[in-house]
Amino acid sequence: MSSTVAVNGEVRRWEDLPLHDFAQGFFFGAGFFTTFRIDDGVPLFLARHLKRLAASVASFPETVRAPPSELLHPDAVREVLRRCLESDSALGPRYTGIGKLTASDGRLLLTFRAPSPDAERLQREGRAVDTVEAGAYRHGEPMPNHKGLSYFRQYSLMQRLPVLANDLGHACELPTANLFVLLDGALVTPPLDAPCLPGIIREVLLDAGHLDDLPVVERALPLARLSEARACVFTNSAVLATGVSSLLGRALPDSLSLAARIREHVLAMASREG
Amino acid sequence: MSSTVAVNGEVRRWEDLPLHDFAQGFFFGAGFFTTFRIDDGVPLFLARHLKRLAASVASFPETVRAPPSELLHPDAVREVLRRCLESDSALGPRYTGIGKLTASDGRLLLTFRAPSPDAERLQREGRAVDTVEAGAYRHGEPMPNHKGLSYFRQYSLMQRLPVLANDLGHACELPTANLFVLLDGALVTPPLDAPCLPGIIREVLLDAGHLDDLPVVERALPLARLSEARACVFTNSAVLATGVSSLLGRALPDSLSLAARIREHVLAMASREG
Repeated sequence: MSSTVAVNGEVRRWEDLPLHDFAQGFFFGAGFFTTFRIDDGVPLFLARHLKRLAASVASFPETVRAPPSELLHPDAVREVLRRCLESDSALGPRYTGIGKLTASDGRLLLTFRAPSPDAERLQREGRAVDTVEAGAYRHGEPMPNHKGLSYFRQYSLMQRLPVLANDLGHACELPTANLFVLLDGALVTPPLDAPCLPGIIREVLLDAGHLDDLPVVERALPLARLSEARACVFTNSAVLATGVSSLLGRALPDSLSLAARIREHVLAMASREG
Repeated sequence: MSSTVAVNGEVRRWEDLPLHDFAQGFFFGAGFFTTFRIDDGVPLFLARHLKRLAASVASFPETVRAPPSELLHPDAVREVLRRCLESDSALGPRYTGIGKLTASDGRLLLTFRAPSPDAERLQREGRAVDTVEAGAYRHGEPMPNHKGLSYFRQYSLMQRLPVLANDLGHACELPTANLFVLLDGALVTPPLDAPCLPGIIREVLLDAGHLDDLPVVERALPLARLSEARACVFTNSAVLATGVSSLLGRALPDSLSLAARIREHVLAMASREG
């Protein structure tokens, strides 16, 4: 993580932040975050990230102290981001990496980290997803709709990267990514009440409604139907889309080109949204 | 919270601790804690608390960095506790209050807070528990067996204090306490796979096996059967036992005396365990 951070709009050093200022987030996981890509100094889909973060904070007014609302506006974050990048020559105004906004204890914390060292390899080779975490979620449970500091259920499974399934035996998501499969001539992703995170890349694809001539739809996804998928990708805001080279033991070579098409589409959408 | 704390055995100031040293706990809820009562400088059931904390840490060796294991021994904690109390005249060697041990990022943090200001009123008047959070847990899900920093599901419900029920319609626990009902001539508490926290007071009561002539048993507790309870208490390590004056709308006047009997029994057990 970069040493330069910002708290409520003020540029600070990560080493100087007291735990004291983030105690509710630390002790009770009472806070939310969002992670976004920064390409050449430009944050991707920032307005969407802030909208989701503000909605999560607003959903728990009695247990999460909200940061001042004016700090959750895209222009305010762009201005703080600009000052952070300019103040640190290791970052610089053309910085490419991952930004993270964390809201807890009445504060908005902005941090930076380098792109994952295996991001390029993941784009080239994809990633196998060969296990299921059965009953990881209950259908309709609300917490996985929020990216919260109480992230341990997902975090503890990130290395193994299983498909998280619900009590109905439906696929929900991966521990840190949304799931899409090419099935019945459509690009299918589980609905929010599966439950899953309303991921930003997921939302961008659903809002577009199609990928070239391929419809993009939300639909309940029984685990048994994964064996019929012609391709599979997972999406998140850092890598955008990663091809699933092997899904529950079945090789899916077409996943890599599908992931590449999604990344291209998403980057085009990002430059259009500005 | 008290300004005097300890990190890995060293007495420190709470205001001086950097967030940096607890980053995995903060960002991912990757850590565990336990809260225990200190009466006249003596921690209650410390060995049991440390055993549960160490077991939780050991359950996730790849995602939670364990503190040095020698720090999780009762003698080590008693020594650190003694030095904390002696070094701060606001605490003092005869301190009565609540201690908390938090394990994350390879560190063991010891903090102190005063007893809850409403603890005496709760003992006198009990507390109504009149709502249910249906399907809060899935039967058998493992995370509620650990007191983790990813505590938000429970924390967000602490004010309302509903009965947390599972997908089978069974009572599991309250957001920060175990549940006991007087039913069929026994003191009944839900089993760990309900799921619920293996709370220390719950464990002490189950280990004893009876309260005077009343058997103490683990048994699945369908919500419908709560209407037959003759009394109800909830237990935690801070207040020990609180009478439920009204359970789902039904007055239970006998809960107060049951809670008082449990507190007396638990304090006797505590002095026996030393």
